[in-house]
Amino acid sequence: MITRQINPQTLWLTFGTPFETESLMFDREQTTLLKKTPSLPVKLSLENDRLQLTDSLSDDTRVLGLGENLRGMNKRGGIYESFCTDDPIHTPGKKSLYGAHNFLLVEGAVPYGIFIDYPGKVIYDIGYTRHDQLIITITGSDVDIYLFQEGNLKELALAFRRLMGESYIPPKWAFGFQQSRWSYRTSKEVEAVAAAFLENEIPCDAIYLDIDYMERYKDFTVDKEAFPDFPGLVASLKEKGFRLIPIIDAGVKIETDYPVYEEGKDRGYFCLNRKDEPFVAAVWPGKVHFPDFLNPEARRWFGLHYQFLTDQGIEGFWNDMNEPSIFYTEERLQQAIDLAKDSEGQNLDIDAFFHLTDTFKALFNHPDDYKQMYHQVKGEMVNHAKIHNLYGFNMTRSAAEGLAELEPNKRFLLFSRASTVGQGRYAGIWTGDNHSWWEHILLNLQMMPAVNQCGILYTGADTGGFSDNANAQLMIRWSQFSLFTPLFRNHAALHTRHQEPYAFDGASTAILRDVIRLRYALIPYLYSEYMKAAKKSGLFFMPLSFEYSEEQAALTDDQLLVGESLMATPVYRENARGRHVYLPETMLLWKATGPAGGQLEVVPQGHHYLKADLAETLIFLRKNRILVLGEPAMSVEKMDLSTMRVLAFVDDTASYVLYDDDGLTHHHREGAYTEIHLTITHKAGDFQVKVAASSHVKVKVLKLVMINAAGKQQEQVVQVVPDAAN
Amino acid sequence: MITRQINPQTLWLTFGTPFETESLMFDREQTTLLKKTPSLPVKLSLENDRLQLTDSLSDDTRVLGLGENLRGMNKRGGIYESFCTDDPIHTPGKKSLYGAHNFLLVEGAVPYGIFIDYPGKVIYDIGYTRHDQLIITITGSDVDIYLFQEGNLKELALAFRRLMGESYIPPKWAFGFQQSRWSYRTSKEVEAVAAAFLENEIPCDAIYLDIDYMERYKDFTVDKEAFPDFPGLVASLKEKGFRLIPIIDAGVKIETDYPVYEEGKDRGYFCLNRKDEPFVAAVWPGKVHFPDFLNPEARRWFGLHYQFLTDQGIEGFWNDMNEPSIFYTEERLQQAIDLAKDSEGQNLDIDAFFHLTDTFKALFNHPDDYKQMYHQVKGEMVNHAKIHNLYGFNMTRSAAEGLAELEPNKRFLLFSRASTVGQGRYAGIWTGDNHSWWEHILLNLQMMPAVNQCGILYTGADTGGFSDNANAQLMIRWSQFSLFTPLFRNHAALHTRHQEPYAFDGASTAILRDVIRLRYALIPYLYSEYMKAAKKSGLFFMPLSFEYSEEQAALTDDQLLVGESLMATPVYRENARGRHVYLPETMLLWKATGPAGGQLEVVPQGHHYLKADLAETLIFLRKNRILVLGEPAMSVEKMDLSTMRVLAFVDDTASYVLYDDDGLTHHHREGAYTEIHLTITHKAGDFQVKVAASSHVKVKVLKLVMINAAGKQQEQVVQVVPDAAN
Repeated sequence: MITRQINPQTLWLTFGTPFETESLMFDREQTTLLKKTPSLPVKLSLENDRLQLTDSLSDDTRVLGLGENLRGMNKRGGIYESFCTDDPIHTPGKKSLYGAHNFLLVEGAVPYGIFIDYPGKVIYDIGYTRHDQLIITITGSDVDIYLFQEGNLKELALAFRRLMGESYIPPKWAFGFQQSRWSYRTSKEVEAVAAAFLENEIPCDAIYLDIDYMERYKDFTVDKEAFPDFPGLVASLKEKGFRLIPIIDAGVKIETDYPVYEEGKDRGYFCLNRKDEPFVAAVWPGKVHFPDFLNPEARRWFGLHYQFLTDQGIEGFWNDMNEPSIFYTEERLQQAIDLAKDSEGQNLDIDAFFHLTDTFKALFNHPDDYKQMYHQVKGEMVNHAKIHNLYGFNMTRSAAEGLAELEPNKRFLLFSRASTVGQGRYAGIWTGDNHSWWEHILLNLQMMPAVNQCGILYTGADTGGFSDNANAQLMIRWSQFSLFTPLFRNHAALHTRHQEPYAFDGASTAILRDVIRLRYALIPYLYSEYMKAAKKSGLFFMPLSFEYSEEQAALTDDQLLVGESLMATPVYRENARGRHVYLPETMLLWKATGPAGGQLEVVPQGHHYLKADLAETLIFLRKNRILVLGEPAMSVEKMDLSTMRVLAFVDDTASYVLYDDDGLTHHHREGAYTEIHLTITHKAGDFQVKVAASSHVKVKVLKLVMINAAGKQQEQVVQVVPDAAN
Repeated sequence: MITRQINPQTLWLTFGTPFETESLMFDREQTTLLKKTPSLPVKLSLENDRLQLTDSLSDDTRVLGLGENLRGMNKRGGIYESFCTDDPIHTPGKKSLYGAHNFLLVEGAVPYGIFIDYPGKVIYDIGYTRHDQLIITITGSDVDIYLFQEGNLKELALAFRRLMGESYIPPKWAFGFQQSRWSYRTSKEVEAVAAAFLENEIPCDAIYLDIDYMERYKDFTVDKEAFPDFPGLVASLKEKGFRLIPIIDAGVKIETDYPVYEEGKDRGYFCLNRKDEPFVAAVWPGKVHFPDFLNPEARRWFGLHYQFLTDQGIEGFWNDMNEPSIFYTEERLQQAIDLAKDSEGQNLDIDAFFHLTDTFKALFNHPDDYKQMYHQVKGEMVNHAKIHNLYGFNMTRSAAEGLAELEPNKRFLLFSRASTVGQGRYAGIWTGDNHSWWEHILLNLQMMPAVNQCGILYTGADTGGFSDNANAQLMIRWSQFSLFTPLFRNHAALHTRHQEPYAFDGASTAILRDVIRLRYALIPYLYSEYMKAAKKSGLFFMPLSFEYSEEQAALTDDQLLVGESLMATPVYRENARGRHVYLPETMLLWKATGPAGGQLEVVPQGHHYLKADLAETLIFLRKNRILVLGEPAMSVEKMDLSTMRVLAFVDDTASYVLYDDDGLTHHHREGAYTEIHLTITHKAGDFQVKVAASSHVKVKVLKLVMINAAGKQQEQVVQVVPDAAN
């Protein structure tokens, strides 16, 4: 073991010869080699070439983290596996989802954080086998481990965040509402969706194309019958305010004369099997090869293929099936078919029958199939199973790097299903194939801060649920949460009920319109918070315990801090007319019925049951914090930013920096952004406002509503005068 | 349509020629034929030979009922089907579970109840398609419909309950803790379980045998190798305080010389196919026939076979797979195998591949298989699909009637998986194959009152969850709820983690011991409440809205009234250290840490967050109500009833009738039971106690703790003097 110190908070332990994952980006030259390993918060042991980390857990120890995974914010009680998995049924007994996020925060008497930089499977037994034991099993012994110590939970999380580099920065329009479905299959269908949004006056910035827009699921093709004038469609939609976002899958269809296939094969860019032939698996199109994204040349080759779509006006993509998902391999399917043949005419009892049906069920993503697949890394054959969790990462990196090469100064919308730590530099993620279940609103909420901790800031769930059927109420309540998530997308599966915001009855459409318009009102704040978090390695979502130290804050796992000012407390139970909320301090409640409507109420510290009718979104403004609100429009770029509303809850002093930029380019890196510095002081019922603004700021007028803890309200209109010197 | 009035609250509408389900038991001669149908709360229409009932739902209308089904207590927002279904994955999008319970309570401006007496599929769209519409679709037009009007929710539910006859009365020992697993496979394993309970000093009254105790899953056989001396095992367990409870399945294995099969075939007691041959389907043993339980002779024949086990000392049974569950039929399996053969060597894309795997998945309980099966009813062939929901009912009735014929005065433990209305006269149910998911504690709670409303009182869930793996915390929290359910059984599936109360660590065992001992302390109360509900067509569990009329009571769907005195508010979130509770009135909280330990606290009306450490069970005693507690023992029959504790929360007057009887026979029907009438009055801090007792009462001393709303506590010891004349 080699022990290094990266900074006083961070130890770096190296065991064996780890695979270079590129998850982290710190300067290795700036670390200090320690001759003696200091005492560690975990015990280390090696057994059967597996490194194990253990710790004992007191009754009061909570364990946060693991990014995109199942169960509550506090992971105690479960077993988890970091192994990117396309499992479309997110029930509580599952161990993995699409991401592999090996970061834990252990909140014992002395809290610590731990990041396991290992691209194969890692197993976490967090008080499951024994309620008082943490056991982390790494399925190998070549690994880097990072330990974060000395600090509270938030400081530990930030110490980790700072090792990852700047987070992905999406275009600003990606904060608008987005509509998806598997699938809008034709130009006409897409145009009808756009028309319905316009007709119903529901803002929307993007419409998605799922797998059916391609010719038989071939990447970088468009079905010409269904989309006879694809660039024309893209342009006409954009003119109306909608971006069109096509999907790209990991697998490349095996088909003679299909250029992507032929090129990949000729150049040796596909993953191999044991016999050095391209590895064959089947996904949507039937048999495919998987590009070897760990090979930099293959990565560049695939990434530049996105040009086929950017040339047609496309400005955003979602990368899917990149765990990679495998429906079957030929050998395994043949085994299942053989078993079926052997079963013919038999009297199958429990054992034989379940063996047969389980064999067909087990074709999907069979772990042994991954062991048949190889990558070529720096001239060596590397078994896929050992670096599995890097596949989606590098597919996404391929797209990000390709797009950056094609248009270096342009921001593209890009997010992925599979992910690992480090990927947040290149793109966002969505949380995959959830269900139209009320439980999944809560799961959505509970995942968000843990995903952020792993550096992935642009994230959100399929609002309304992917599988199963939504009803209007679920759609409304879920939207009332998703309006806080950077990615706010309604997406649903084939054969499910239509769940576009206008797909239910008139009363529900009206509520959803108001909820989505409320989202647009929040965009100046959400974008400002996102950009600050991305540029300064901060966090967008935080659990209450990151800011409030009392035990009750840590026990509250159905509320979320959103940026520096807000707390989200969504209603996530069907037919509820309110919910219980814990306030770690006195806050201002805005029961919002739309971008401007609703009631304001000061709610004291403590436990409360708060009524929330279906049309009401509960938005809490923290003490001495400020919320800036914009005027909604039908799309982000149509928003008139000249007048903004400000809601301030001020006990003594509140200040806020509202960040903005062009939203489309990376000129912000050279200082092309604006800030409004707002400071409000309160004393004896009187509020004083100070505003300082960069030059070029678009905001001209701020309409302030300021409230103190006693509920006293003062309104003021302030002109924003850009600083000539800035 | 023929309209009759059963009583001023109850209308009976008959359409066509309904199948005689025997769900209800009222005297048809005592009904009044109405010449004119009064105005009905629902609209009726007939389309394609399907009767449809519709109503519009205001935003404030809640819809309760549907017995054993998914989602919350308020069924709004969902689609449900009454069609007994063996679906082992109880996720929120499912439409049916094992029971078909066609009772709804619609709590609009004028509440009404509705019971649809129809043995085929009934579909309920309760504000799903349109949030403001109730649509009930009966898949036929020969049906009896009962409408309950004029009264509050509780009165309407009781009006329905009274039409069903007396509920099933289990032996008193069936209120003890029960331990099950698929499977304890041998005498030795069973003995080891018993020994572990004794050694760990955890009370337990029953140990279960799942399917593996039989010879190759043949009903009314015992595997002689695994159980060389079955009667000896039964006797020795009973001596130690444990009853052994074997499972009986619906399907009879097709096997030459197996007497049950040969008899059933020879006598024509099996269900038939279209060709008048016994219908063949496959379940655990492979191919089986299904007894035609709708034929009274077949029913009696099968029921008397239970003697094989009662002769060996068995006193309780669970009837399973009686929806009936069908793994596959020969024809359908052959189709799947043919498809697999056709798929050989093909490049299966999304459509072909999912078609193949879905075909194997769809073998289970395929709806078309039920259409191939026929019953002989009064000389006519009746298609099974049309009377599907009566199958489990009549299998259970077969057992109950058979056991009653064998030992008329003996109470047997008997419960079933499939059920319908009316079955509550014969047996209880368990709620089937749930999962070790926290959500399923809540689902368990939410089902209980709806199941009661359908007359099934003896009920409970697989505590700790059947599928997936439990951890110690889940087991503890779930047990803290199940200790209120008449059936309190720990049961888990093959290949899951062992979850017996001693299967975790020492600290968890200690807590579970206390929780189970707490259950035993509650048995005098639970048994008294159960027996009163059974004998007087009452309810054991009620939602808060049955007793409290404010809206918040109706919105509270995670709390339950248990008998007349208690309110259960279990903690059902992992890692929680308490929960929010709504108190419709001031109540006394007993934070119980065991049968006697814990704190007492008066909690005022309103919303509260209450701490509840893992070892603490929250038990609320309602105002002016009394709880009688016994002294736990290792089994129910070992409990010394001579001294009981009484906890009373008295504002002015509280009274309670403690019922007891021999717990084993039906002599209670001839008056062989005891009652203690307890009245406590409170005035200005002083409590007056009056006790009257039947002769033969076993209780000699009551130790009272009486508390008033101000928290003033008074203790008193009262001698119980049996009334010589009673």
